[in-house]
Amino acid sequence: MKGALFRAEIREQPRALERLLERSGDFARVADAIAARAPETIRLVGHGSSDNAASFGVYAFGLLPGWTAFRDSISLATYYDAQVDVSRSIVLALSQSGRTPDVLDYVERARKRGAFTVAVTNEPDSELGRAADAVLPLEAGPERSVAATKTYTNQLAALALLAGATTGRGDELRRALAQTAAMLDEAIAALESTVPAIAVPFAFVGRMFVIGRGLEFATAREVALKLTETCRVAAEPLTATDLAHGPIAALDPLFPVWTIASVDASLPAALDAATRAREAGATILASGSAAAQIEGAAYVLPVQQAPNKVLAPILSVLPGQLFAAALADAKGLDPDSPHGLSKVTLAR
Amino acid sequence: MKGALFRAEIREQPRALERLLERSGDFARVADAIAARAPETIRLVGHGSSDNAASFGVYAFGLLPGWTAFRDSISLATYYDAQVDVSRSIVLALSQSGRTPDVLDYVERARKRGAFTVAVTNEPDSELGRAADAVLPLEAGPERSVAATKTYTNQLAALALLAGATTGRGDELRRALAQTAAMLDEAIAALESTVPAIAVPFAFVGRMFVIGRGLEFATAREVALKLTETCRVAAEPLTATDLAHGPIAALDPLFPVWTIASVDASLPAALDAATRAREAGATILASGSAAAQIEGAAYVLPVQQAPNKVLAPILSVLPGQLFAAALADAKGLDPDSPHGLSKVTLAR
Repeated sequence: MKGALFRAEIREQPRALERLLERSGDFARVADAIAARAPETIRLVGHGSSDNAASFGVYAFGLLPGWTAFRDSISLATYYDAQVDVSRSIVLALSQSGRTPDVLDYVERARKRGAFTVAVTNEPDSELGRAADAVLPLEAGPERSVAATKTYTNQLAALALLAGATTGRGDELRRALAQTAAMLDEAIAALESTVPAIAVPFAFVGRMFVIGRGLEFATAREVALKLTETCRVAAEPLTATDLAHGPIAALDPLFPVWTIASVDASLPAALDAATRAREAGATILASGSAAAQIEGAAYVLPVQQAPNKVLAPILSVLPGQLFAAALADAKGLDPDSPHGLSKVTLAR
Repeated sequence: MKGALFRAEIREQPRALERLLERSGDFARVADAIAARAPETIRLVGHGSSDNAASFGVYAFGLLPGWTAFRDSISLATYYDAQVDVSRSIVLALSQSGRTPDVLDYVERARKRGAFTVAVTNEPDSELGRAADAVLPLEAGPERSVAATKTYTNQLAALALLAGATTGRGDELRRALAQTAAMLDEAIAALESTVPAIAVPFAFVGRMFVIGRGLEFATAREVALKLTETCRVAAEPLTATDLAHGPIAALDPLFPVWTIASVDASLPAALDAATRAREAGATILASGSAAAQIEGAAYVLPVQQAPNKVLAPILSVLPGQLFAAALADAKGLDPDSPHGLSKVTLAR
């Protein structure tokens, strides 16, 4: 069956999360090593889904220990050999396979220049795992679908667990993640029955915007990437605010806008963006724990509120994953073998 | 005439650059104040074109003084009131009008928390200008076109001049920028005669990717934004490497890919991405000083090499601006009044 691997891995996410939680001890140890260094900055690097997880990491570290974290420029190090002082930084390198060439190169350079480097990967024995000062296992298990799902959600969980543990909140996050795994099971069951009928009218859609803000910008990026790679929809992620700074001009009734709306301090920005998009004539699909608050949404894919607000993106990405599987089906595409992609991307 | 303002401001860019250079003294003074603080990080904030200029700022500061600069999360401060230590940071707030609400809010919070804040704006007397510790004038002059052009190029010039001046290279950058202004005049004359014929076949294009890497990622973002807001093309900017991590699966012969290729250390990544896109069947439009090196490009819009590699993006955005004007014309759209946009965006 087309997309069998993709669907199986979406459904496996609660179990993958539980496997990760069994490694809480590793996270506590690495968190202690990080906190002992009183870092100036956390530098996150990755490509594709891993870079989307890095967007989440900016918020996990900003909200839990209150540290400055950012998605660092890989090019500055790799192509320009920029002489930036990284000696008081922690590097978190995200790679499913541990083989992404420029992430590996970045880590080797940063370590030489004095950064404390941590590889977060499904493959602790990979080149990346060996190149870093410390390794955190993702425990997502073999990911055979080209489009990442369980690796992405475990990356979010790993970043939240690590960020929490650096500030004495490791146990709290571990418990909240265990609850989130149970909620994911319920959400999968509920959404699998409603998503296919919602995906069908999108069968001939060629372009979409996916809007999120704050913690949910990572979700907007990841949902857009799933739609692009498995459904060949040119789906562009935008912050709720950036939509108004130009892209809204492209909207019309044939240009759907997916809005991620969670019960969150940034919700007013998402509501405002959805109103502007609807006024521009766009069809709105709303997902997230506050999806019902998006006025005039033509389609709604709600999820429950996470037990800790920082963890909301783990639940809110699910409607996007299941929608991508259903839309690929409606389009006759096979999400297990996207046009022109292979599992491990060795592109520089 | 439709788009008269947009074209006039594109053509005015060399003069706007020269006006900025007359304020070099202001840049030198602010640069000294910044350098005296030996900052840990440079935090760049802005929306739309200003955020694209911020992408350039990451490289200008990384390559000239060798400092860590990044596009900071506005949401973390504004929506979540995150308790991040910004006391050893410099904030550079980019806003054409000086009225962007959440950029203003971000600056007020950061200043209270001890950051040294600098507003970079066309309106030094704006709320943003008054809220910051220091103001740098953009000197782009009244920008009446909704889609920014001369403000964007002057933002790049301002960031390069400031970054250079913090490390004793202010005069060198000033001279290089003066040369760049003269080269812009030549490039405008050359491209205005060739661009319209190249834009016409794109009249019914609804989606594109725009690829850049390193310094030219800012250009990819800005060209994509011009195409989206003035031509209603869903144009998504991607780093050359991220194209291979998923989005390439969406390509086909009806999905053009614009590749920014400059003589630059990151050129191999752009060449590699263009090859992958061409192999996926996409039509390639290549621009930049190394456009001729993109094999199999169907359309080529070359510019000259900038006198300093850091300044390449000031020249390489020009083909995108002129192409957007010509394509809007071919589509019968008026770039001076994009659907649903106003000049000053007060969206949160």
